[in-house]
Amino acid sequence: MRKAHIITIGNELLIGDTVNTNASRIGSILTQQGFYVEQTFTIPDRYEMIISQIRSSMESSSVVIVTGGLGPTHDDITKKAVADLFNVKMREDGAVLEHIREIFRRRNFTFSRSNAEQAQVPENCDVLFNKKGTAPGMWFFENGSALAVLPGVPYEMIHLMEEGVVPKLREVFPGQDVWATRYFKTAGVPESTLSDTIGDLGEFLNNGVEAAYLPSASGVTIRISASGSNSANAAKKLEKISNRLKEKAGELIYAEGREESLASVTGRLLKERKLSVAVAESCTGGLLASTLTDIPGSSDYTEGGIVAYSNRLKTGLLGVSPDDLEQFGAVSKEVVLQMAKGAAERCGAEIGLSTSGIAGPGGGTPDKPVGTVWMGFWFGEENHFALNAVLSKERLINKERTVMIVLETVRKVLLGLDGYPYNLKPFRA
Amino acid sequence: MRKAHIITIGNELLIGDTVNTNASRIGSILTQQGFYVEQTFTIPDRYEMIISQIRSSMESSSVVIVTGGLGPTHDDITKKAVADLFNVKMREDGAVLEHIREIFRRRNFTFSRSNAEQAQVPENCDVLFNKKGTAPGMWFFENGSALAVLPGVPYEMIHLMEEGVVPKLREVFPGQDVWATRYFKTAGVPESTLSDTIGDLGEFLNNGVEAAYLPSASGVTIRISASGSNSANAAKKLEKISNRLKEKAGELIYAEGREESLASVTGRLLKERKLSVAVAESCTGGLLASTLTDIPGSSDYTEGGIVAYSNRLKTGLLGVSPDDLEQFGAVSKEVVLQMAKGAAERCGAEIGLSTSGIAGPGGGTPDKPVGTVWMGFWFGEENHFALNAVLSKERLINKERTVMIVLETVRKVLLGLDGYPYNLKPFRA
Repeated sequence: MRKAHIITIGNELLIGDTVNTNASRIGSILTQQGFYVEQTFTIPDRYEMIISQIRSSMESSSVVIVTGGLGPTHDDITKKAVADLFNVKMREDGAVLEHIREIFRRRNFTFSRSNAEQAQVPENCDVLFNKKGTAPGMWFFENGSALAVLPGVPYEMIHLMEEGVVPKLREVFPGQDVWATRYFKTAGVPESTLSDTIGDLGEFLNNGVEAAYLPSASGVTIRISASGSNSANAAKKLEKISNRLKEKAGELIYAEGREESLASVTGRLLKERKLSVAVAESCTGGLLASTLTDIPGSSDYTEGGIVAYSNRLKTGLLGVSPDDLEQFGAVSKEVVLQMAKGAAERCGAEIGLSTSGIAGPGGGTPDKPVGTVWMGFWFGEENHFALNAVLSKERLINKERTVMIVLETVRKVLLGLDGYPYNLKPFRA
Repeated sequence: MRKAHIITIGNELLIGDTVNTNASRIGSILTQQGFYVEQTFTIPDRYEMIISQIRSSMESSSVVIVTGGLGPTHDDITKKAVADLFNVKMREDGAVLEHIREIFRRRNFTFSRSNAEQAQVPENCDVLFNKKGTAPGMWFFENGSALAVLPGVPYEMIHLMEEGVVPKLREVFPGQDVWATRYFKTAGVPESTLSDTIGDLGEFLNNGVEAAYLPSASGVTIRISASGSNSANAAKKLEKISNRLKEKAGELIYAEGREESLASVTGRLLKERKLSVAVAESCTGGLLASTLTDIPGSSDYTEGGIVAYSNRLKTGLLGVSPDDLEQFGAVSKEVVLQMAKGAAERCGAEIGLSTSGIAGPGGGTPDKPVGTVWMGFWFGEENHFALNAVLSKERLINKERTVMIVLETVRKVLLGLDGYPYNLKPFRA
């Protein structure tokens, strides 16, 4: 495999004011394109270090991607360093200059000399035209090594990587294997359970096929990837292992693809079935409603609901029995079931969802320690139940994980799937 | 200034599965301690590269921090590489072994041979005892250079940096200047307005004093820092510039310190004044309530409220006039004022806060483009008003920024300060 180096430039990265998301985005794109990302360097905005790092990286690897230090204030350093490295003069790029002028006209800003200098580029580069900003990307190919110099603003960088750098790389390194990747997302399944369910994948892991479990706070994602001479070819190698995953864990996989969220999948199911949902939230304090309404178009199936943080609202707005509140406590099966029913009825929705728990850090008791959560699900008189889980000591994690369990439960019920997240047992009234 | 290098080890960082937050946390801590973080390297779990990078970094800098590759599965690589670099044998650390055994007992896990190997360390190291996990940190001091090898799990790494590495660094490099840093947080003020308000800081920026504006989605933070022979000494240098910032921008600064959030500051004001708040959310869809209830103890002043995503709930649960909804539309001064009043009255709170807007990406009109938001504030019959802003095209940014404007407005009203976020003009009924 051809080697790649990533060089990110910026004092803000070194002193920790900014987290280096660019390095991981570039690493991910280069890996997809079949390169072996061997090293990432972060260096300061210093002329000599920029020159020496680019030079040594170009000597030892086929691809070098540099980001940062191209804004109007730092213009001179990175561009001048690169021009001096190749011992070439600068030239003005007419198309870039016109593009920058146009941006300034549109924003009604005064165009100054320092802005015009952004259109200066080393004369041996191909310009990677930056539709999303004023600093052009630059492409060099010298002695068999490719060098791309890109602005550090993440969405400009990603735009130039995808539209400019990737096509150029395929042109100068034809026949390079590419990687096809697929993601299978799950929620509410521990990694060990997931891997036991799927079983040994050894027989599929040959001929360039790889698999990985990626755990995060919102669930475990399975990534599979394979290399091939072109995308179709590589994708084809993933068919058998994909089928195996779907056969063994199909019901646990809520989405294929990296970007789709559980709220969006569950929302689509609600919309397809012409069902609407209302919430009654205590311990999640509005996060369930907010997560549902993060999805564009969610007004089609989200009525809204009630954040009943105080007991007064649980009785007053949701119709929870004051006696039951007294007898069983706010964090109880009885109360979340009444909350879920109250939400559905008072908001005019088919489905009511409720949460009540000890989010922490305080408020735990021996019986109900911090992290204890009850969730209520009202799908109508004939189907309603409550789930109980004991989560973590961390308030924000408890809010997030409760929302995940609720949404995954709704997905399973709507699809008629067996079982509940984390193998929880339903309590029916 | 003494130079420092950071070496982060892990294929997951290079291929972009994980964002390198460790590098920025370590960079920030070392900078505070007065070191010049000159370079950060990310390298794969490869024996020869680990040895050669640590060797060359120790030759050129006073401090080298290495993270990653210490989990039970990768144990051998990093530890073996370091032992071989120094040409020493491994020894078993009794205290570490007992600690690991104890963790396994507590979790009821079976203790195996590979777990015991985590207690093996190179014989020339000082163990940095890891209370938060099974992999010990390791400290070396050779030829005037310090090397710390730490696990990659972020909270274990931070714990060992703060409790283990920093005290050791102060011991081996006594007399090293340290940095004192203060943060001043603002919300709802554009960076340019803030800098105009504060004026030129040139006269304060000498003798090692620095200042920076750090903009983010949730507001602009001003960071000031100064170096000195000890913390008290460095902190003293910040007095004059701190006073200047507070004198010029005191009313704009909602918190000093990096960690405190606007929701926590506003919450504390509500609690001190024994006031309670209720929400009526349309476009923010629960995010305002969720942000308020992210704060531990928020039940003292948060009643909860109503997420009135549909118009049916605006009239049914909040008492908004159907005629006004029809005549002015849901995104209007009239409706948000009635929502705010309805929230306060129906939830029994002194203060009612409401939002209604076009969050996007769809739903805009020429009159009310995507990003149009109305916010209602009910502080009682004698004080209620609405604010109107046009934010961005991005749904999630619009939700977040609306919540920020609402909370900052409440803070200003409670403190009796003039003006509104972004210089918005209040509409009174």
